[in-house]
Amino acid sequence: MSFEDRVRELAEDVAPLDAEAMAAARERHLTLTKPPGSLGRVEEVGARLAGICGECPPPVPESPAVLVCAGDHGVLARGVSPWPSEVTAAMVANFLSGGAAVNALARTVGGRVSVLDVGVAGDLPDHPLLRSAKVRRGTNDLSRGAAMSREEAARAVLAGAHLAEELVESGGADLLATGDMGIGNTTAAAALISSFTGRPARETTGRGTGIDDATLALKTRVVEEALELHAPDPKDPLGTLAALGGLEHAALSGVVLAGAALGVPVVLDGVVSNSAALVARALAPDAVGYLFAGHRSAEPGASVALEALGLDPLLDLGMRLGEGTGALLAVPVVGGAARVLSEMATFSDAGIEG
Amino acid sequence: MSFEDRVRELAEDVAPLDAEAMAAARERHLTLTKPPGSLGRVEEVGARLAGICGECPPPVPESPAVLVCAGDHGVLARGVSPWPSEVTAAMVANFLSGGAAVNALARTVGGRVSVLDVGVAGDLPDHPLLRSAKVRRGTNDLSRGAAMSREEAARAVLAGAHLAEELVESGGADLLATGDMGIGNTTAAAALISSFTGRPARETTGRGTGIDDATLALKTRVVEEALELHAPDPKDPLGTLAALGGLEHAALSGVVLAGAALGVPVVLDGVVSNSAALVARALAPDAVGYLFAGHRSAEPGASVALEALGLDPLLDLGMRLGEGTGALLAVPVVGGAARVLSEMATFSDAGIEG
Repeated sequence: MSFEDRVRELAEDVAPLDAEAMAAARERHLTLTKPPGSLGRVEEVGARLAGICGECPPPVPESPAVLVCAGDHGVLARGVSPWPSEVTAAMVANFLSGGAAVNALARTVGGRVSVLDVGVAGDLPDHPLLRSAKVRRGTNDLSRGAAMSREEAARAVLAGAHLAEELVESGGADLLATGDMGIGNTTAAAALISSFTGRPARETTGRGTGIDDATLALKTRVVEEALELHAPDPKDPLGTLAALGGLEHAALSGVVLAGAALGVPVVLDGVVSNSAALVARALAPDAVGYLFAGHRSAEPGASVALEALGLDPLLDLGMRLGEGTGALLAVPVVGGAARVLSEMATFSDAGIEG
Repeated sequence: MSFEDRVRELAEDVAPLDAEAMAAARERHLTLTKPPGSLGRVEEVGARLAGICGECPPPVPESPAVLVCAGDHGVLARGVSPWPSEVTAAMVANFLSGGAAVNALARTVGGRVSVLDVGVAGDLPDHPLLRSAKVRRGTNDLSRGAAMSREEAARAVLAGAHLAEELVESGGADLLATGDMGIGNTTAAAALISSFTGRPARETTGRGTGIDDATLALKTRVVEEALELHAPDPKDPLGTLAALGGLEHAALSGVVLAGAALGVPVVLDGVVSNSAALVARALAPDAVGYLFAGHRSAEPGASVALEALGLDPLLDLGMRLGEGTGALLAVPVVGGAARVLSEMATFSDAGIEG
């Protein structure tokens, strides 16, 4: 079976949410010791968790894992970021030694960090937290040609999916948070988001790590050129990914598909994860039901993508770091929503007339 | 020393934030392995934590505690809520047996629950999680006379402060989340918020547990009548509290003052906590520096109070339950902000040229 066929097979494993379990959760919320609706969006999250796992109450996630997918970007040659490609490998090393923001926030919420090298240009050491599945050493410049081949895109999708499956099936994770590392990757994210939403580059391209006005103007032009060059067809998600994506974007769309196929909630980080979710949705429309938008990244493309996905972010703290940081901070909201449904007393338990 | 004098003494113990530690935190953020400012408001939270404890990096909160202050309300006689007073005691019993939303969310974030009976009308059992410091069995109807005496208000403030001090000084808490229980207490909160902000009752009065239009209109009139009757002077916080407050509002203002005096971060829950924070600020203006608005309650008075306090809420999930639920879900944001400052590698540690 070709890699593309295997991606299609994975996408076919994504089922709609369990409507009966969601209805049971909504019913149950009315019986719990609180005024109806008083937990606001936490109640919606809980209902969706029931739909995701197909039972009410849904299990309480005990083992969140953040999957940080990493890759490099040929488009960096255009000057879209002041940071050199080498920083990608250096930051991966920082993740592995526990010194990055993602590590600090994973410790905060009791999560594990798992790093997937799907396309880092540099060499990385063996490490228990690192899964090496390098498809290639960085992409080509997406503004001058396809970022990668369709087969490479499919292999990267499958690499993300396989890591997610291993973590879930081994009991190492019952909730997946998405994270990314890749200098230049907000350029690819903007191109993907414009392609899947039809919105112009100026609405999806942002300052990434914090570029100045001139670099932002250049970056926006680069995204425009890429969109003109490839005229990507959003109905061909793998072709679009190959033309415009990064290897980590591809891997993250695989994480989303695998999480959805396995019936596990997936909490999205910022703009790179949001763009990957658009790819995943194009491959498997039902996948969106399994997704929670952890936060609204300050990157403008994030809001465009979330609107298109129909996802309302749980946090809005002006974060724009990536790595999975915004997803991790939202994990307790998701966990709390599950605990409410599974642990709260009903009015009848508490002897209160509701 | 009179109870009022003891409240004044407590307020005098609140010092301004440590500007040097805050500046050190902002400097440190620039050296950590992330683009400057990329953690958005999490960075501001971290800087304030440094200012609160007077050192950079600030310690990571390891023992969050939610203090749920409970009381009953004479104004219930006016028909402002469909729930009877007895539900206050029944819900306290629910907190003690671990079946309420506050318990489920405290478990989510590794927090302990501590309940203070400062004015519940009914009798409550002895229980290790319950501190009994009943000042009186519910307030008088605030729309017909003073809700309580100045001395009672002062005693309730001190009861909240003492529980907070005990928890902090025994090592049982290094972060305080505020919570409330009291059928009818959003009426008192609306009256307090109108009094301290000068905004009319129609902007501060909300649906509480979920009342219908007719009850909301009545509740708003009751708040208007109370404001007319007492013409409270916001420069006399204890007098305002005595006229309009609830015993739990008073106790929560004591929790705020004690947390600030001890240099411990205090995470506010919704509208009742917000109104108590206005009282605390009137007693000790520097207390606001120690406060984080855990969330924006759906209750309109909450937004009015937060604006007046100059606090931007960390979460905005449409919650309106009270009990401390919205404060608890924000605790990981505060904890994460501390971990970022204390645990992240610098660019120099990581061998990256920043």
